Amino acid sequence: MKDALVVVPARDARAVRVRPGGRFRVVDIEGGQVVDLFAFVADDVAEYASAEHTRVHVNRLFPRVSESFVTNRRRPILRFEADDSPGVHDMLCAACDPTRYRLLGVDGWHPSCQENLQRTMAALGHGTIEVPQPINLFMAVGVQADGAFTWSAAPTGAGDGVVVRAELDCIVVASACPQDLNEINHYRPTPIGIELLSNASPLSSPTPPSP
Amino acid sequence: MKDALVVVPARDARAVRVRPGGRFRVVDIEGGQVVDLFAFVADDVAEYASAEHTRVHVNRLFPRVSESFVTNRRRPILRFEADDSPGVHDMLCAACDPTRYRLLGVDGWHPSCQENLQRTMAALGHGTIEVPQPINLFMAVGVQADGAFTWSAAPTGAGDGVVVRAELDCIVVASACPQDLNEINHYRPTPIGIELLSNASPLSSPTPPSP
Repeated sequence: MKDALVVVPARDARAVRVRPGGRFRVVDIEGGQVVDLFAFVADDVAEYASAEHTRVHVNRLFPRVSESFVTNRRRPILRFEADDSPGVHDMLCAACDPTRYRLLGVDGWHPSCQENLQRTMAALGHGTIEVPQPINLFMAVGVQADGAFTWSAAPTGAGDGVVVRAELDCIVVASACPQDLNEINHYRPTPIGIELLSNASPLSSPTPPSP
Repeated sequence: MKDALVVVPARDARAVRVRPGGRFRVVDIEGGQVVDLFAFVADDVAEYASAEHTRVHVNRLFPRVSESFVTNRRRPILRFEADDSPGVHDMLCAACDPTRYRLLGVDGWHPSCQENLQRTMAALGHGTIEVPQPINLFMAVGVQADGAFTWSAAPTGAGDGVVVRAELDCIVVASACPQDLNEINHYRPTPIGIELLSNASPLSSPTPPSP
């Protein structure tokens, strides 16, 4: 039997509910696409996967396979179970947002991971959330010895992915990053997928992004 | 005339109000002490200095002198004006909190930068705030080529400091980090100071930390 697949259209986001011990795989369907991943505790969305607490927990910039992402209350929420991508991920950069695109010279509305997250959560009844630093899967931001960043195109091939296990009952939101003004998505945003492996279910689809 | 000095007792925090263009200097009075610095927009504390937005703004792990820290709405809030310390600072690690000390084996209450911040802001009428990733002045967390962290004692000497200019009307909170279970403060937390250089004024002193 084939696992259920939630397709996240290019530039859009989808949410899934994952029970403790439940597993899902985030897949880069066509390759070369960054995914902004967020996780909130289902019964209290003020608790969420936190980059700065996770870095201290694992004592490095990004967890390795078998390590966990923790919340802003230092509780493990997602365990990084497997990675068949090139293993390049980021947890340093804020989600793109309307201001980011304005500063990049966009005249008018542009879809963004922040609005994707907010719209998706609002459709689930969570109209007011803090926007956490995302887990930027497949995003190639390197740190040089002097602390300066280098930005590169996502090195993933079609079908590459990561498997994650929920440690808490949580709402996971995955945004197919709409960034098309720098190289991170090869200037060509594409869809991603969320494969529901066990104890994970799709939540109602949000309305498509619009101004 | 001597500039006003707000002394922050060891393990405690103080707040100052800084008007746009106002300047202050954070000084490590005895040396070897980490300062957790936070800044909130005075008329809307949901907007605050954000590590993840600042990293993208300056395209590196930490701003250099003459660069700015920006808010979670990507507006410059603090400009890094001068640094006569060794120049070692961190913006990767969450503030210490009661859970951090419990996980380090503390039995019972331990003061923390998170509680210092929350108590200080509550005394100013802001009982509910998001706890941002702090600007950890003088904190020596190195990043190795593989992303792993190294922790070292703060390299500051007595009287070393940094000068910061406010770009927005803001509430600045400085916590003299109470961490005494690892090397960052040489296992000996000490006081810090906030020198009010121009257009900056002390806010009411909070009650001392207590369980």
